[in-house]
Amino acid sequence: EATEYAQSLDAADTLAPLRQKFDIPEGIMYFDGNSLGPLTFKSREVLHHTIEFEWRERLIRSWNEDWLAMPARVGNMIAPLIGAPIDSVIVCDNTSINLHKALMSAVALRPGRTEIVVDVDNFPTDIYIAQSVADQHGLTLVAVPATDIIGAISERTAVVTATHVDYRSANILDVAGITRAAHSHGALMVWDLAHTAGAVPFDVTAHDIDFAVGCGYKYLNGGPGAPAFIYAAPRLLADASQPLHGWWAHADPFAFEVGFRPAVGINRYLTGTATVLSMKSLEAALEIFSLVSMDDLRVKSTSLTSLFIDLFDGHLAEKGFTLASPRDAQARGSHVALGFSGGRGLVDQMSSRGVIADFRPPDLMRFGFAPLYNRHIEVVELVKQLAAH
Amino acid sequence: EATEYAQSLDAADTLAPLRQKFDIPEGIMYFDGNSLGPLTFKSREVLHHTIEFEWRERLIRSWNEDWLAMPARVGNMIAPLIGAPIDSVIVCDNTSINLHKALMSAVALRPGRTEIVVDVDNFPTDIYIAQSVADQHGLTLVAVPATDIIGAISERTAVVTATHVDYRSANILDVAGITRAAHSHGALMVWDLAHTAGAVPFDVTAHDIDFAVGCGYKYLNGGPGAPAFIYAAPRLLADASQPLHGWWAHADPFAFEVGFRPAVGINRYLTGTATVLSMKSLEAALEIFSLVSMDDLRVKSTSLTSLFIDLFDGHLAEKGFTLASPRDAQARGSHVALGFSGGRGLVDQMSSRGVIADFRPPDLMRFGFAPLYNRHIEVVELVKQLAAH
Repeated sequence: EATEYAQSLDAADTLAPLRQKFDIPEGIMYFDGNSLGPLTFKSREVLHHTIEFEWRERLIRSWNEDWLAMPARVGNMIAPLIGAPIDSVIVCDNTSINLHKALMSAVALRPGRTEIVVDVDNFPTDIYIAQSVADQHGLTLVAVPATDIIGAISERTAVVTATHVDYRSANILDVAGITRAAHSHGALMVWDLAHTAGAVPFDVTAHDIDFAVGCGYKYLNGGPGAPAFIYAAPRLLADASQPLHGWWAHADPFAFEVGFRPAVGINRYLTGTATVLSMKSLEAALEIFSLVSMDDLRVKSTSLTSLFIDLFDGHLAEKGFTLASPRDAQARGSHVALGFSGGRGLVDQMSSRGVIADFRPPDLMRFGFAPLYNRHIEVVELVKQLAAH
Repeated sequence: EATEYAQSLDAADTLAPLRQKFDIPEGIMYFDGNSLGPLTFKSREVLHHTIEFEWRERLIRSWNEDWLAMPARVGNMIAPLIGAPIDSVIVCDNTSINLHKALMSAVALRPGRTEIVVDVDNFPTDIYIAQSVADQHGLTLVAVPATDIIGAISERTAVVTATHVDYRSANILDVAGITRAAHSHGALMVWDLAHTAGAVPFDVTAHDIDFAVGCGYKYLNGGPGAPAFIYAAPRLLADASQPLHGWWAHADPFAFEVGFRPAVGINRYLTGTATVLSMKSLEAALEIFSLVSMDDLRVKSTSLTSLFIDLFDGHLAEKGFTLASPRDAQARGSHVALGFSGGRGLVDQMSSRGVIADFRPPDLMRFGFAPLYNRHIEVVELVKQLAAH
């Protein structure tokens, strides 16, 4: 009966045709789009054009003809997915580096403050980067569980950073409350949208977020190691600076001036030369998002994760699996984590049969349900495989 | 007669067959490999495999099967080109970011010192990054012409940075003298090898260099925006740290520890996720260097640039061009710059006819002669086109 129910959901799914944009191999069920999105037909096509025409044939001329404009152009494709205005998002470097820039900017904008507050369950790279920024400025890193962040913010806080969707549990943090608390104490707020962009709606403008960073290779499907993005609130741009200001962050890079003059807008968050091939693949994959609204994606995402949890209750709870994600769909991102003592082995075993999920220590199996291409019927099949372990 | 002479040089050129590794379009004469190396057949083949097999088919599994090891593996392909031992070079990020890491490391290793010395004619991004590091530490940036660097080094100097081959003139700086002066005053030395690696021999070991950085998309032919590299002397690694220590720099990234523990070796210079597509293209292109010695490349390179200067004397000096590169082949990198008042227009005009060079303000035409694929006969043809302007 679960199969029939899932089939009826898939039949009614208005996003179902979008799966045809992805070249998912026959026999693969993919539940790891929250780690690496699959190949789109468009990325293949664009990469071919980039290699054969832009690189091979046009060679250095492609910089002026196309590539120099790419970080801003691709940033403007991501902006609507996170509620950002035009020219406030730019694509470059990786998430760790962009978080460094955002935190360094924030600390410089709040001189005299002595603390950085971070979610202790944040993805580790965020904590490492925050620790480094704190060390460089002689600040204290206050690392607390997500539920304690608001209480940890004070007049001492220069900046607060957390990830919107927890990378293990998929728990959605209280964006409104945490951001308001930061601002009410005069601190700045940096959100990491790694598990948000492309799967969960977000609105940097409505929440008056100061900085946001995120990842190009998860739900945005940019390909392995696709560059990351950074958002800075336009109201901050005139005064904000970041220390990795290479020539691409200069107001006029090709004037080759000896002195640094920051670009007027979001370009000041660039560093050096863009990774063209990786960014081209991301740009191509982002086209899909022009065909769909984030609200519709969210409906499909919660439908997939809710079905999985329903089936967990009926078939997996009794077999030693525990639910490690919120039951409340509104508090949950687009993946679901299950605790299971033999989790690592089971992930490997299923992977060898083409059912691909992820494992995070100590015992979490993590299943990403990407609304652009996953189907309800795949959720049923996944639960069958888990139940039969 | 110049044509016949060039043909005889090409006929005797033992490196000539290597041009067949490059897919240079019919009708193009390319003198800009010092800005963007052309496509190799191997890069195309490897990128196809990466897209179709590693990304499309293996998906997330490719991280363990191949990609995680790539920064170190590709670093070890670059190491012999700059005289570095195994596991002392790693590929990541861009040159600006890697220079930031090297300078931040150096300054931290020399506490109490108050100055950074930089070549004022350095590529601007190097000066901007050095200025930023100086500002962050309250140090003074001492920017002087290359010939004054040695005199500017003192007991106050924490670190000296310069580019081995000047990006405009191709002038080769005095590596031995400058490095010795830095060390004799207890300062550290960071060389930028952007216009060196793959064209001009260099030996970080013989000169006991502390740090070096360089570029993957020029003479190494990695493709547009290919990642850069960084070398750190093994004797420094135990104590060296850099502030962009994301999870890839951790001793055990997949333990997801809350506290940062730096990797034991050169991996501590990594930040976040590698740009797989761009790095794959670089790895493929680097294979060519296993077929040739840097000394043989240098002989061919100086043969090409010397021929160009001979023909300049006979045909271009009288037509308003001036030589802006050293006459002494030993003092010259692998490109030659000519001053010409209408340089920008002439570069554009020639480009539209498929003769591709570069322009750098205020009036420099820059011609790169890449020993892996340029031919002497192309030098003759280039001079004909310039003379006929």
